[in-house]
Amino acid sequence: TVLSQVWYPLTVATISRINKHVLHHYLTLTHGDPSLAPFLLHDCGYRGVSSVESAAIGAAANLIHFQSSDTVAGTCLLRKYYHLEGVGGYSCNCSEHSCVTSWGRDQEVAAHAHLIKTNPGVDVGCVVDSYDIWHCLEDMFGGELKELVLEHGKNGHVVAVRPDSGDHCTVILKCLDILESKFGSETNSLGYKRLPPYLTVAQGDGMDYRKMASVLEVLKKNGWSSTNVGFGAGAALLQKMDRDTLKCAFKCSFAVVEGKEINVYKQPITDPGKTSKKGRLSLHRDEEGNWSTAQEGTGDKDTDQLMTVFENGELLRDFTCDEIRQRAVITPQDIDIIHFLNQQDN
Amino acid sequence: TVLSQVWYPLTVATISRINKHVLHHYLTLTHGDPSLAPFLLHDCGYRGVSSVESAAIGAAANLIHFQSSDTVAGTCLLRKYYHLEGVGGYSCNCSEHSCVTSWGRDQEVAAHAHLIKTNPGVDVGCVVDSYDIWHCLEDMFGGELKELVLEHGKNGHVVAVRPDSGDHCTVILKCLDILESKFGSETNSLGYKRLPPYLTVAQGDGMDYRKMASVLEVLKKNGWSSTNVGFGAGAALLQKMDRDTLKCAFKCSFAVVEGKEINVYKQPITDPGKTSKKGRLSLHRDEEGNWSTAQEGTGDKDTDQLMTVFENGELLRDFTCDEIRQRAVITPQDIDIIHFLNQQDN
Repeated sequence: TVLSQVWYPLTVATISRINKHVLHHYLTLTHGDPSLAPFLLHDCGYRGVSSVESAAIGAAANLIHFQSSDTVAGTCLLRKYYHLEGVGGYSCNCSEHSCVTSWGRDQEVAAHAHLIKTNPGVDVGCVVDSYDIWHCLEDMFGGELKELVLEHGKNGHVVAVRPDSGDHCTVILKCLDILESKFGSETNSLGYKRLPPYLTVAQGDGMDYRKMASVLEVLKKNGWSSTNVGFGAGAALLQKMDRDTLKCAFKCSFAVVEGKEINVYKQPITDPGKTSKKGRLSLHRDEEGNWSTAQEGTGDKDTDQLMTVFENGELLRDFTCDEIRQRAVITPQDIDIIHFLNQQDN
Repeated sequence: TVLSQVWYPLTVATISRINKHVLHHYLTLTHGDPSLAPFLLHDCGYRGVSSVESAAIGAAANLIHFQSSDTVAGTCLLRKYYHLEGVGGYSCNCSEHSCVTSWGRDQEVAAHAHLIKTNPGVDVGCVVDSYDIWHCLEDMFGGELKELVLEHGKNGHVVAVRPDSGDHCTVILKCLDILESKFGSETNSLGYKRLPPYLTVAQGDGMDYRKMASVLEVLKKNGWSSTNVGFGAGAALLQKMDRDTLKCAFKCSFAVVEGKEINVYKQPITDPGKTSKKGRLSLHRDEEGNWSTAQEGTGDKDTDQLMTVFENGELLRDFTCDEIRQRAVITPQDIDIIHFLNQQDN
């Protein structure tokens, strides 16, 4: 049934919101304005999901919170079913390892130069660890390619350098230090440093919200604004999850048998944690923003947050992508994300 | 590209083969004949995957090794693309928790009786832990329902009782002991006990090959043949995997640039483990059955196991489901599965 298919978009959208929360938090602390958050985590999960249909569903769920994506199938789904006009996620021209390595090891600098030169009007992303990342940043981007980078910047476009191996925090910090030594930096009103606006670091490689939080914390401690780094994620956004991730189990709670209403529930003695909710359920939110479920019909119907969307094959509420995005905006009523992550650790 | 889509079926089929290996191993030790293996792990993963398309691809990959499945989409795919006739996987009539709990807690025994009575010609599976699993087995299946179970058995059909919570090994062992005390057991030629042929235990709930191996080892130590238990798995068969599970990364290794052949590879200094293979590659198998990859064109072309399947949009080799299943049969050249699992733990 359609019910058994909702765990996946629901789980992606929830994890995706935690990701945005983390970015939001550090942007507020080190930059002041969190509105950049939807552009700082790029969905590169197309190749990492189990099918094209999953790519479409997962990417669309992620696009509720983010607007940076290479998983085009997500935009197609939102245009078809959620009245989206235009595109759901934006991208730029980036090199993969094979774009660099197929030039041959001796020609690495020519590969990067080619990417920048042939993309004069757009932001570009260059993978820099095909061989020796430090040589690449010091001598190529900070040396032979420097004029090209500056010219790209003068035209209003960004060059992102992408490390793709090693310890995330150590590598990113060292990348920033090298780029600062070659291109300088500015300090913002909150006292955090920013590379020139035409330079940024793009970090993928096994990224999830915990790793993102650890990188941004290290950047903060070292005086760097979180705007110096954009992240990319694939499997962690769209594949590494299952029904256990958010404990998505659907159980019958109520039935009418021969005219008689009965509460339905399971309560296995070998695992009390699997006891299910019983009777008519309703969902409520108090003034502090906390959610709770009322069982056995005890909830106030007038404040029930559950609503019927599908009924007997009919779509009763046709939400647009814009409405859903608006509803998902992070507000002061939301949880303290760092406190939440620490709780999960304990 | 189609290349980026192969990691998923490839990973499912590999994990699935490890599952069959484990069953094969314990059937050989405690029963003598491993040919039952393809029927002892049931795919109930449809609700646990991220889309219908993923269900089809994953279930089809699993059906290379198994013939027990509720994920009908897998059969549809094999019929459409791999010349399968008939069905790929068989099933029986089983209750879910809601089938039992919607009768009301007081009517549990009636729910089980209903399932057995209304399915006279087929094997049935009864989930027994909705409330008190021991009460259910002792007093219902071993008491009030005993005559029904015996009659079902006389007609040549099996009643499987399905625990679904608690510690796998402890719960299964106790289930077997209770059923033995009520229905007796027989000892096979290898000295292992078997419940009467019309009775079996079906174990799902978070099953994977490690848990399956631990359950079968405990059964063996306690004198029970592995034929007393059938397993079910959902997420572990079809969802809990990603490109990192088997390190499925596709890298360019060879290119011809302006007529010149070059070896293409990456070798990041921040993670030597990510160094990729270079040049023309070929795949070889020695007399002991060990596989190896030859790089830079050094392999003997005549013994290369790689073959072209798709080329320029054309399907050059059209394998049938039967051929693939035949190729995947476990032989004496295969690894020692318990040794392999122990290696993975260290």
